[in-house]
Amino acid sequence: MRLRHKPWASEKIAENSHYVIPEPQEKKGNWSSIFGNNNPIHIEVGSGKGQFVTEMARANPDINYIGIELYVSVLVSALDRLIEAELPNVKLLNVDARNLNEIFADGEIDRVYLNFSDPWPKNRHEKRRLTYKTFLQSYEDILIKGGEIHFKTDNQGLFEYSLKSFSAYGLLLTFLSLDLHHSEFEGNIMTEYEEKFSAKGQRIYRCEVKYQNEK
Amino acid sequence: MRLRHKPWASEKIAENSHYVIPEPQEKKGNWSSIFGNNNPIHIEVGSGKGQFVTEMARANPDINYIGIELYVSVLVSALDRLIEAELPNVKLLNVDARNLNEIFADGEIDRVYLNFSDPWPKNRHEKRRLTYKTFLQSYEDILIKGGEIHFKTDNQGLFEYSLKSFSAYGLLLTFLSLDLHHSEFEGNIMTEYEEKFSAKGQRIYRCEVKYQNEK
Ligand SMILES: C[S@@+](CC[C@H](N)C(=O)[O-])C[C@H]1O[C@@H](n2cnc3c(N)ncnc32)[C@H](O)[C@@H]1O
Ligand SMILES: C[S@@+](CC[C@H](N)C(=O)[O-])C[C@H]1O[C@@H](n2cnc3c(N)ncnc32)[C@H](O)[C@@H]1O
Repeated sequence: MRLRHKPWASEKIAENSHYVIPEPQEKKGNWSSIFGNNNPIHIEVGSGKGQFVTEMARANPDINYIGIELYVSVLVSALDRLIEAELPNVKLLNVDARNLNEIFADGEIDRVYLNFSDPWPKNRHEKRRLTYKTFLQSYEDILIKGGEIHFKTDNQGLFEYSLKSFSAYGLLLTFLSLDLHHSEFEGNIMTEYEEKFSAKGQRIYRCEVKYQNEK
Repeated sequence: MRLRHKPWASEKIAENSHYVIPEPQEKKGNWSSIFGNNNPIHIEVGSGKGQFVTEMARANPDINYIGIELYVSVLVSALDRLIEAELPNVKLLNVDARNLNEIFADGEIDRVYLNFSDPWPKNRHEKRRLTYKTFLQSYEDILIKGGEIHFKTDNQGLFEYSLKSFSAYGLLLTFLSLDLHHSEFEGNIMTEYEEKFSAKGQRIYRCEVKYQNEK
């Protein structure tokens, strides 16, 4: 799906530059002005087809959301959803998460969401996991003091790895559910992958971690 | 079981003072001499009927084990097992884990095992959980620098709580399995509770955490 050629996708994205922001590195430090208010900004890294950011934005009109997605072919589905929803507090970016520091100024972001991130199970691909220490460093840079990462996944190996990686980085574990859909957690908003894997009977793992920095 | 009166139990324990050490607070700082060697000492807090310490001791003759159990009625089963096994590197203590600092000198212990600790699910009983911060403090006191706690349980709530408690205490998470019996972990030695709950299809959770102290 992701790799299928969609020539019309780039065109559609270009036509909707109020939703999919072009040249995002030029907006560094000025994201509040893009939204036209000073509300907190939460980003989802690897936002896929955009169900999570769209529904979170609908439920929380006083928070601004930015979905970050590497693949045009996937991002275009999120754009369709956003055109349909007509929400002022969601933007999408077609960028690689490795470039976050070029797109956001230090302390510009209030929260990072990671949902069903690619697991990269082979040891030699550890550096690609979105919970690898270099990513944790760039999230720390762009987040406010005491900023949080909220992470959920069905992938047991990635979740085990991530809890160890968070611990090694010195992040404080403030919330943990080892079976989200059978817990008392309220107000969960499902992602596409979450709907798919929980329907198959997979457990969903979720945690929140907090930077214990001074800034 | 645990509460049934067993008058013969105390007698049997008194007769086997080479296995169940009487007046353990008088041995503080001198546990190596009890074992007659300088091998590392690992303790299990809440050792129940003693299968874990006994089988660990059999598999690791160069490590000394001490099983700590509050209830005489349970400890006596561990004693029976030990009389049968005739192992020189296991001792049992009939003491409350709240008194660890009176029994062991600072840095006298090399590792703490917690297996299937009582979950105390009610919030108001939090302080009784063996992974509550006051217990983490006393384990830190009696452990060597960089000492570890190895913890396993089938209880999801206790495991979630404990990972948060370890994080808040500043412990480093070095091993994590969210499904031990379907993992690559080798050499697992089962406890009585582990056999019982895994036979019922319960998942077993396991982690290792390390103190990051200077001492
Ligand atoms: C498994 S999907 C999950 C999508 C969505 N979060 C959900 O839960 O349904 C992971 C998404 O992350 C995107 N992704 C992976 N690595 C990325 C990176 N380095 N930068 C931006 N997006 C990335 C992938 O293209 C994919 O769409
Ligand atoms: C659920 S059992 C598990 C026994 C064994 N570790 C196993 O896995 O089969 C917990 C044990 O811890 C003991 N225990 C609970 N609190 C304790 C305390 N404060 N000090 C010593 N032992 C305690 C209980 O008496 C009980 O035997």
